[in-house]
Amino acid sequence: MIKIAKYIGIISTIALIAADKAPKSPSEIAQAAPLAAWSQIDADNIVIFTLKDGKQFTIELADKLSPIHVNNIKKLVRAGWFEKTSIVRVQDNYVVQWGAPENTKLPDGINLKPQEEYEFLKPKNFVALPFKDTFAAQTGYVNSWPVATDGKKAWPVHCYGAIGVGRDMAPDTGTGQELYTVIGQSPRHLDRNINISGRILSGMENLTAQSRGTGTMGFYEKEEEKQPIISAKIASDLPEALRPKYQVLRADTKTFQEWLHAKANRGAPFFIKPAGAVDICNALLPIRKQ
Amino acid sequence: MIKIAKYIGIISTIALIAADKAPKSPSEIAQAAPLAAWSQIDADNIVIFTLKDGKQFTIELADKLSPIHVNNIKKLVRAGWFEKTSIVRVQDNYVVQWGAPENTKLPDGINLKPQEEYEFLKPKNFVALPFKDTFAAQTGYVNSWPVATDGKKAWPVHCYGAIGVGRDMAPDTGTGQELYTVIGQSPRHLDRNINISGRILSGMENLTAQSRGTGTMGFYEKEEEKQPIISAKIASDLPEALRPKYQVLRADTKTFQEWLHAKANRGAPFFIKPAGAVDICNALLPIRKQ
Repeated sequence: MIKIAKYIGIISTIALIAADKAPKSPSEIAQAAPLAAWSQIDADNIVIFTLKDGKQFTIELADKLSPIHVNNIKKLVRAGWFEKTSIVRVQDNYVVQWGAPENTKLPDGINLKPQEEYEFLKPKNFVALPFKDTFAAQTGYVNSWPVATDGKKAWPVHCYGAIGVGRDMAPDTGTGQELYTVIGQSPRHLDRNINISGRILSGMENLTAQSRGTGTMGFYEKEEEKQPIISAKIASDLPEALRPKYQVLRADTKTFQEWLHAKANRGAPFFIKPAGAVDICNALLPIRKQ
Repeated sequence: MIKIAKYIGIISTIALIAADKAPKSPSEIAQAAPLAAWSQIDADNIVIFTLKDGKQFTIELADKLSPIHVNNIKKLVRAGWFEKTSIVRVQDNYVVQWGAPENTKLPDGINLKPQEEYEFLKPKNFVALPFKDTFAAQTGYVNSWPVATDGKKAWPVHCYGAIGVGRDMAPDTGTGQELYTVIGQSPRHLDRNINISGRILSGMENLTAQSRGTGTMGFYEKEEEKQPIISAKIASDLPEALRPKYQVLRADTKTFQEWLHAKANRGAPFFIKPAGAVDICNALLPIRKQ
């Protein structure tokens, strides 16, 4: 937000002295968090996708929030389904979507009509965000996942990097054969309308920088525009040494409360007027690769 | 959000019949709006930027909300300043920023210390959004610009496509020599901390699909990564026939109220559970090129 060279100039002279006294930034707080404030992400829920250009993106599947759809997605990965898919749609300020050509035969054993998993009973370990939300009575976290709640039920929210399951008209809920991720302002009108089965862990920039599609809803119009996915692997299926490892900050920790306060009240020297609040989609828990 | 071929299949058989009875979508409502529901965007506030690869993006300057900074930006455009700039920073889920190399001499006549324009008195023509906001007492529109208000003061909000003015540490407010646009979840913590001087009218996809920078804060690390801007022109300085023309939907119209209702309550056949609300950054007024 700044002429960086000048900024570095300032830091080198005055601001380094002030930095000791300045409130810590959210990322500084996360970086200084004790190991116990982090939760290990299960290798059985990590899927590594490799694009034809060699670039990768990695997702975590929400096996506790969306067990039926996640079970399908794992079966699809292990049956080699995603090697038949490409990025077929990039709609600016909305989604990047990947899927196979119409009528590609699904592997055996896929649940073709998975039941709805849009909502679940709000669990006791829900951690609330103490700020207003436009769409729900409250927002917060279940384990480390961003959710909204009406007090009784809770549901995952469509934030940047959420992984959703493409579907046809209801009652279809999608098989998991076609997935998308959110690349713009959170489309919260999709909450409870489309299944969320995961989130991006890394490599988001390899999806967001793809050319926007020029067809209806951002679909690519030409075959050659589609970036094929050449590999999809579950981390736990790889040899131990090759598994990428990730951790997510726990919402039930003192570090989280400090981080949240810093998120909502950005400090001097740059900020003049702290917002005093933060929305759930700008308060996604920090994820780090080990 | 869907296997498009199948979707089209459905439309061709059943849904076309249902479509007559289905509630209109927000874009259908905007498309059907009478001419009087649209406001012409002043050619003197439109700036057309051309990148070295020939692609363009076009912005509208907020001359009424931010007159001092906009006056500077217009002077910079007319003095050829932006032909010395490049895209220097692309930070995923945050901003694309363009500026000149450090120590490039500014043209004469630029106000080097423009006064703050972060807030203004809430005007009588403020149109309220009837939904909760995380950050302010209320949100809505002044003319066609998205703003937040505490009841007395109002300020522009950092939504997707907003044009902000890079600055150094306060009391600097930025000259306009370095600009950015928002490319992710709205960073509302920047509201009232950085001047907003405009918004993208078209060509956003030519900014958002740029490769993400690998340096600190998404700055490019190599000169060759920077996409130069080879031309910046104010539309009113072009011959009449060459001026791009845009209109924005007026917030003080019946069409707007219908559009807003449809935005907050997405209809069947696709949607199962309408959100019943929409946040200001997902309710940016439709803009159309003529």
